[in-house]
Amino acid sequence: MKALVYHGPGQKSWDEVPDAKILQPSDVIVKMDATTICGTDLHILRGDVPAVTPGRILGHEGVGTITEVGGAVTTLKRGDQVILACISACGKCGFCKEGVYSHCQGEEGAPGIGWIFGHLIDGTQAEYVRVPYAENSVYKLPATVSPEQGVILSDILPTGHEIGVQYGKVKAGDVVAVVGAGPVGLASMTTAKLYGPSRIIAIDLDANRVDEAKKFGATDGIVASDPEWRDKVMAMTDGLGVDVAIEAVGIPQTFQMCLDVVRPAGTVANVGVHGQAVQLPLQDLWISNIAVTMGLVNTDTLGTLLKMVATRQLDPDVFISHRFALDDIMDAYEVFANAAETKALKVVLNAR
Amino acid sequence: MKALVYHGPGQKSWDEVPDAKILQPSDVIVKMDATTICGTDLHILRGDVPAVTPGRILGHEGVGTITEVGGAVTTLKRGDQVILACISACGKCGFCKEGVYSHCQGEEGAPGIGWIFGHLIDGTQAEYVRVPYAENSVYKLPATVSPEQGVILSDILPTGHEIGVQYGKVKAGDVVAVVGAGPVGLASMTTAKLYGPSRIIAIDLDANRVDEAKKFGATDGIVASDPEWRDKVMAMTDGLGVDVAIEAVGIPQTFQMCLDVVRPAGTVANVGVHGQAVQLPLQDLWISNIAVTMGLVNTDTLGTLLKMVATRQLDPDVFISHRFALDDIMDAYEVFANAAETKALKVVLNAR
Amino acid sequence: MKALVYHGPGQKSWDEVPDAKILQPSDVIVKMDATTICGTDLHILRGDVPAVTPGRILGHEGVGTITEVGGAVTTLKRGDQVILACISACGKCGFCKEGVYSHCQGEEGAPGIGWIFGHLIDGTQAEYVRVPYAENSVYKLPATVSPEQGVILSDILPTGHEIGVQYGKVKAGDVVAVVGAGPVGLASMTTAKLYGPSRIIAIDLDANRVDEAKKFGATDGIVASDPEWRDKVMAMTDGLGVDVAIEAVGIPQTFQMCLDVVRPAGTVANVGVHGQAVQLPLQDLWISNIAVTMGLVNTDTLGTLLKMVATRQLDPDVFISHRFALDDIMDAYEVFANAAETKALKVVLNAR
Amino acid sequence: MKALVYHGPGQKSWDEVPDAKILQPSDVIVKMDATTICGTDLHILRGDVPAVTPGRILGHEGVGTITEVGGAVTTLKRGDQVILACISACGKCGFCKEGVYSHCQGEEGAPGIGWIFGHLIDGTQAEYVRVPYAENSVYKLPATVSPEQGVILSDILPTGHEIGVQYGKVKAGDVVAVVGAGPVGLASMTTAKLYGPSRIIAIDLDANRVDEAKKFGATDGIVASDPEWRDKVMAMTDGLGVDVAIEAVGIPQTFQMCLDVVRPAGTVANVGVHGQAVQLPLQDLWISNIAVTMGLVNTDTLGTLLKMVATRQLDPDVFISHRFALDDIMDAYEVFANAAETKALKVVLNAR
Repeated sequence: MKALVYHGPGQKSWDEVPDAKILQPSDVIVKMDATTICGTDLHILRGDVPAVTPGRILGHEGVGTITEVGGAVTTLKRGDQVILACISACGKCGFCKEGVYSHCQGEEGAPGIGWIFGHLIDGTQAEYVRVPYAENSVYKLPATVSPEQGVILSDILPTGHEIGVQYGKVKAGDVVAVVGAGPVGLASMTTAKLYGPSRIIAIDLDANRVDEAKKFGATDGIVASDPEWRDKVMAMTDGLGVDVAIEAVGIPQTFQMCLDVVRPAGTVANVGVHGQAVQLPLQDLWISNIAVTMGLVNTDTLGTLLKMVATRQLDPDVFISHRFALDDIMDAYEVFANAAETKALKVVLNAR
Repeated sequence: MKALVYHGPGQKSWDEVPDAKILQPSDVIVKMDATTICGTDLHILRGDVPAVTPGRILGHEGVGTITEVGGAVTTLKRGDQVILACISACGKCGFCKEGVYSHCQGEEGAPGIGWIFGHLIDGTQAEYVRVPYAENSVYKLPATVSPEQGVILSDILPTGHEIGVQYGKVKAGDVVAVVGAGPVGLASMTTAKLYGPSRIIAIDLDANRVDEAKKFGATDGIVASDPEWRDKVMAMTDGLGVDVAIEAVGIPQTFQMCLDVVRPAGTVANVGVHGQAVQLPLQDLWISNIAVTMGLVNTDTLGTLLKMVATRQLDPDVFISHRFALDDIMDAYEVFANAAETKALKVVLNAR
Repeated sequence: MKALVYHGPGQKSWDEVPDAKILQPSDVIVKMDATTICGTDLHILRGDVPAVTPGRILGHEGVGTITEVGGAVTTLKRGDQVILACISACGKCGFCKEGVYSHCQGEEGAPGIGWIFGHLIDGTQAEYVRVPYAENSVYKLPATVSPEQGVILSDILPTGHEIGVQYGKVKAGDVVAVVGAGPVGLASMTTAKLYGPSRIIAIDLDANRVDEAKKFGATDGIVASDPEWRDKVMAMTDGLGVDVAIEAVGIPQTFQMCLDVVRPAGTVANVGVHGQAVQLPLQDLWISNIAVTMGLVNTDTLGTLLKMVATRQLDPDVFISHRFALDDIMDAYEVFANAAETKALKVVLNAR
Repeated sequence: MKALVYHGPGQKSWDEVPDAKILQPSDVIVKMDATTICGTDLHILRGDVPAVTPGRILGHEGVGTITEVGGAVTTLKRGDQVILACISACGKCGFCKEGVYSHCQGEEGAPGIGWIFGHLIDGTQAEYVRVPYAENSVYKLPATVSPEQGVILSDILPTGHEIGVQYGKVKAGDVVAVVGAGPVGLASMTTAKLYGPSRIIAIDLDANRVDEAKKFGATDGIVASDPEWRDKVMAMTDGLGVDVAIEAVGIPQTFQMCLDVVRPAGTVANVGVHGQAVQLPLQDLWISNIAVTMGLVNTDTLGTLLKMVATRQLDPDVFISHRFALDDIMDAYEVFANAAETKALKVVLNAR
């Protein structure tokens, strides 16, 4: 079979590799119908994620059709078309029973479950994929949802929803600010609408993205370079700050922007992947009655979001900026890596 | 001043009456700008609410402008235009501190607070009204919200929201059935949308109302006389029933319909005003893991809903079917009392 | 092997029966170390539960040691001593993913999961038991918890906790009334203490039980035949009623008693198994802002309660009134069936 | 009247000062029956709180008897003995309606409400005190609660409860670590018991305090200087960390200790008052699914805790290490300021 293989920092290719095989009785094999590229894949290619070793097939999102099932699998069968959650979870450990799939403990002798696709095991940018703990990690695609829509449900919509909106405790009437209007920030905006906020304010350095954000649910937009950006945010509240500030960039400055606009009793929900520590000015904040949250997606709400897509209450198509054949994945990487120019959001790769 | 006075069962008139006066230091006097008629007023006129005695001015909804403030009032002043909550609450007792304004205990020597306008004290279908516990019972009307919109926020939107949607615990992805597509059922549908349900199913005997419900947020509709109504509801879920069934009629049959369609771990939220007991078949239901809720509106979410109206996330105008001058309130009653023919929903009475 | 077999209404015997066998790959076989008798077993013996057919082995509680594991079982092994939850749940269906194990849908072709032990499949009053969906339905017994203590965790403590206390939403400072001081009522009292109530009032017809209830956490007791029982309850609150009323008997009168004492914004949590419908006087209650809850235990908190027992924060021993050898189960039934005289609470049957 | 007056850094005296007077109609005057000294008072005396200006009467805790009431006060009267909450709150602003009294906005022209006693207005270490917004800021002392017990309810118990336990989301079965066994840490331990944790681990540098903590609810103790302290904490959990880590010291090291022991999906609740920023290592924590909370007490649970004291479910007496006459407050400060030697916890000052 063919797959996109990582060959060390800066190096990747679309290679012929050995076929995916069942290794555990709870595995299934899936023929990929559609997959995509994540910002994390670019990080890996820069060499920022040393746990990813040369030879690894990348990718952790996608929709495929089951071609083979392991001996312990009873609720899935050949021919089922399924969404692959980006998180693999055993469904049996303490964390899984609480829905904290991101910290799945797996079983004795099989630790390190959670985000493993394209990281610790071979991933989804391939013709076939082995899916561990399949019964707890895939979702059947309803007839009314397209494979492309399913791809958006693998990671990005659950991440924006769980880590941005749910951890942020968005509720009816709230004013929500989202700092960063890239894919995950937009996913927070889109899913925040399910909780009845009175305003969703998109904040980004790129005026075009701020503008585009309105298609994703933002009611207001502010360009972050505006020296009066904070005053403008405050003016969109009752002067006391936003109820929820969602950090969707991953650098100290944007984290601080969130602290700067959150009101007492509000929440800063960090979604961004950070590369360095931030300062928490507790000498000022100890008195501020805020919560700061963070974390990796659990995909425990993937099923709920899928229902919303199936009933047309949530539209994933708007996230798709480019489409390629799976074979043309090297071109797709080119486009995605140059998002500032290409305005790429999610590039979908469809099997022929 | 002029006011609509109840003169005993079947009798009412638009009379000249003594001016409204400050009685307690926490009172204000309001000149009514807009008011409306509630189904409860028709009940009173039928003699169904014996606590209402002849001579009482009816009405418990409306928007007005403050003309006088009591000596203890510090946060309101003459000229403020305010929405009158249908619930009057002292803000100091144990229930008020929990937000259960409907069961406000008032102060020593002043019991019976809660719903008192047009019931235990003179109401809002008048040129002027005395508003007790004003600082805790009125909401300033923002410039972006019209008095007519404010009227819809006095009772009907909070009732549908608090007693239907919040007590029903509607959450993202839920399937919600609303039995009864009159004003309060429609208010439940409209406010349910703030919680991200995947479907809102309107159920009513009147096919026209079922159809109209789509303007208020219903995604699906079923005519209750259809012998297959229950099968149709089930087919709109995964076959196991709805997450939330909202009763918005007030008779045993419609309450039973809700029990018939709610899924295990779901909720039946009763909003309807009932005149007789219902059966709860606990011999079947003890094992069903459902909750049944009920209650009078607290208006503790009026402020939140007002924010949603101000930011155009919620549209109250769609509830207004007819408009009259306040002087023409006798005609307005005629139209409202014959809703089946006139298709009246909320009739708004505007001061000239 | 030997087992207690139901032979139709009024008939049971301790018989030699075929050995328990693995039927599905997710099964385990357990050699019982300790089991007990539930009031439900008495109901079955009266013929009240027609789904139980002659030949069925009774019992749904117990602790045992695994002697055999099915092919799909990876997290359990021979020699593990485990608590058997009274609810068998597949862990994969929608209800299981929400923790609503009581309504487990099982898999295609295997419906009717939930309470099945000693009901739809052979139960735990036997030397050996087949445990379906074992990985999701048993809990390893820590070294610091005795098998007898484990038996109390199979059903009674989770039932009192989940259906009484959690559904009742007991919280710090609450006044809780428990109507019925039998095993499940006492389990509600014991586990209510984990939520910081200010008072727990035991109400029962039997003055001795009311008195005994103090050992289980009751702070106050009232004999239900006292004509002033309700006034006494009210005097133990601020005069407005209890926050939570737990029904632990299962007849219309005791359900009504709960409605009689619950305060506005409070909850009636029904735990009792009812044989007939009750009246819900909605003509009075529609305005009362209460919730009425009901349901079958999920055992989703069994693990949490087990932790509390292991750290000595919860004491199950106090529930054990009598001990027998498993072989003497016919005598144990005699004692348990005459609880009024024998003062039996839970009778534990230990394997030799 | 006499009062403890701040005269600038390092300087205080028990002076004759002008009598406390009603300034607003919502004020009352209280004759102090009992008061105490807080660690914050020592901070002020070191000059660390510049908002406190020379001439200010210190103190923000206490119980007293009302001697005079303002014109707008209807629910309090002369002779009522009341607990003074350390937070003064108008009860009318948006934050107050949500129970976020610590950020009370007050009324136009009267900002800065919240913690103001002994800070922005004269405090409680005096014979008489003016209490602003009295109806929302005092609690009547029940006959079964002593003034000394009431003093412990002014600040320390609500702070430990709200900012440590509630913000920490302690729930049944949790393992809770409290770093710092001073008064506020001990208050977190005592009130954590109302939420059914399976363990409460006290961690402090002082072995004596660790030992004493068991009287306040700790089930386990660890001396922080033990190089294996972290391993010991982990061994008291399932190896994955504590559910809730409460910081009750206020320095970067102890904050880091909390991050070091919290499990995925757990919470770090900061109660300590910090003088400098801390590092939040988001490069590691972004993936950790934790929440970090902080804030000033709201005293919105003072009433609930008072109920628990009145019903003997919570014992404040154990916090009282020393007693003095109010006149001897200078001696009391001496003892309290040398807590390491005197083992002072709370020193109560009783009026003669």
